[in-house]
Amino acid sequence: STRVQAMIEKETPVTQRPYTFLRESDEGGAEGSSSNANSVRARFEKMIREVQDSVCTALEEVDGGGKFKEDVWSRPGGGGGISRVLQDGNVFEKAGVNVSVVYGVMPPEAYRAARPVDNGNVKPGPIPFFAAGVSSVLHPKNPFAPTVHFNYRYFETDAPNDAPGAPRQWWFGGGTDLTPAYIFEEDVKHFHSVQKGACDKFDASFYPRFKKWCDDYFYIKHRGERRGLGGIFFDDLNDYDQEMLLSFSTECANSVIPAYIPIVEKRKDTPFTDEHKAWQQLRRGRYVEFNLVYDRGTTFGLKTGGRIESILVSLPLTARWEYDHQPVEGSEEWKLLDACINPKEWLH
Amino acid sequence: STRVQAMIEKETPVTQRPYTFLRESDEGGAEGSSSNANSVRARFEKMIREVQDSVCTALEEVDGGGKFKEDVWSRPGGGGGISRVLQDGNVFEKAGVNVSVVYGVMPPEAYRAARPVDNGNVKPGPIPFFAAGVSSVLHPKNPFAPTVHFNYRYFETDAPNDAPGAPRQWWFGGGTDLTPAYIFEEDVKHFHSVQKGACDKFDASFYPRFKKWCDDYFYIKHRGERRGLGGIFFDDLNDYDQEMLLSFSTECANSVIPAYIPIVEKRKDTPFTDEHKAWQQLRRGRYVEFNLVYDRGTTFGLKTGGRIESILVSLPLTARWEYDHQPVEGSEEWKLLDACINPKEWLH
Repeated sequence: STRVQAMIEKETPVTQRPYTFLRESDEGGAEGSSSNANSVRARFEKMIREVQDSVCTALEEVDGGGKFKEDVWSRPGGGGGISRVLQDGNVFEKAGVNVSVVYGVMPPEAYRAARPVDNGNVKPGPIPFFAAGVSSVLHPKNPFAPTVHFNYRYFETDAPNDAPGAPRQWWFGGGTDLTPAYIFEEDVKHFHSVQKGACDKFDASFYPRFKKWCDDYFYIKHRGERRGLGGIFFDDLNDYDQEMLLSFSTECANSVIPAYIPIVEKRKDTPFTDEHKAWQQLRRGRYVEFNLVYDRGTTFGLKTGGRIESILVSLPLTARWEYDHQPVEGSEEWKLLDACINPKEWLH
Repeated sequence: STRVQAMIEKETPVTQRPYTFLRESDEGGAEGSSSNANSVRARFEKMIREVQDSVCTALEEVDGGGKFKEDVWSRPGGGGGISRVLQDGNVFEKAGVNVSVVYGVMPPEAYRAARPVDNGNVKPGPIPFFAAGVSSVLHPKNPFAPTVHFNYRYFETDAPNDAPGAPRQWWFGGGTDLTPAYIFEEDVKHFHSVQKGACDKFDASFYPRFKKWCDDYFYIKHRGERRGLGGIFFDDLNDYDQEMLLSFSTECANSVIPAYIPIVEKRKDTPFTDEHKAWQQLRRGRYVEFNLVYDRGTTFGLKTGGRIESILVSLPLTARWEYDHQPVEGSEEWKLLDACINPKEWLH
């Protein structure tokens, strides 16, 4: 455990947001393709910080009361992050929008957790890596307003310390997915159609492929059900042009507001009963189960010694576990559960 | 996943509690030491079923209203269990007391999860096993009444299918531990002194050793804190006389009532505020984190395809996660957290 936690240095709170979390050697000094302000590293960091700003602004506007609290932190050897959390607002129970930039060293076990698809030339020794991402989970109070999650990230491995000339690897990952407690078909269709729109600008195969990947990824094995109604998800994506994938990630991240905000606007004030709330809380229990047991980002973060409060901000403010709860067949609760067990094609 | 879930057959609900869950070949037919009514398997099953009965009776008496709901289930090839849950009673939010008897086959990965201490002659192939145990978590409503957990279990491996003459292995595991949201020193001392009393009847080294083991085991690595104030815990115990360990497990299981019931009786009606309740709920969030991320019984159960509702009955009815909550230094909440970070010797 000490060894694993040592992979990333302990973070320190800082009072001012720095212009960049990149190491100085990465941001402007050298002229290599990944070592200046036009590098993918630098442009990806800029993108995720702009997304964080625009999403937080949109959310405060919808909430009409709650304000984001910001924590900025850095690590001595480079990297850091900005965590923003709005808790107990008018509309949102808990909304977290984080960006982070990490320089670390992966032991093989963490490397597998971050990237289980071995492409054949992974070295068994410790691997220096760079990772940057925006990650967000928004849990509204109203049981008819869905939870949304999005995460867009970029990874690079450096050459192993014992093989300085070896080629670097890079890949993109991410996705946006919707987790309602009750199904409004028009909402789910709207959400998926925005995802499809973002995908179709780049490759007609992306939406069907990443929609299925999402259904497969957010699977709670021990329950035989998905945590929600999906969206898109992709990981380890490096078999396309790097610039194209940077644009694609940017497009997806910028689609969060049009995909989600109209839905939460429409549902935030719907009257509800204690029974509706209890069902929402049970579904939030499933959210906790998925995130703590299966989510790669969470389990990777817990293993690498990332900033715990930033990692676990994805957990809902409150959750519930009733013994052997079974919705009545044909009820609204049952319909949601059915769609989590048997994923649907929402755009057909 | 299909492979792993196939290790234990799917359970079927049954309407009557059978006299025993042992396979017929185990309960009376043959004359081998583990193949009749005096076998350790048979006597352990009898013990845990008696403990389940006596604990449930004591809890219904304390609760003064809630009644246990019982689910009995069995598996075609032998084994089964009895789950009893009291939910939303007067005193208990959720109280689960389960017994189970399992015949299964362990793949090496599950075997490691169940028994990480390799003693040097573990075979890499699938290993048939027998496991029986009583497992219980009791979550009271009142934030001044602590949660308690106990689990006593007995494992045997059969000879591997491809080596019928190879020696069997057996071991005992278990423990009883206390998780309050607020410290009443007299309660914690009472609880630990009952554990010590049970241990001291068998070996003066047991209490100090198993107290420390408990502090080490219930450690939430990513938080740097324990889930509660400990008690005793032991696992993989086979380096003592088997009869002695059966008696010891029985003594420990029978100590649950005198260790816990007086505490919950004393605290169940203490007046409390919303702030006390919110702190209890935050600590229950930690309980969920430990159980889903680290607990060997839970993670083993999720991997082997055990009965999910029985495995996850340990989770509290409700839990809470606030971003970056920090108790005020010197407060009662801070004192609890401090004792979870720096385990104390309660009997000095």
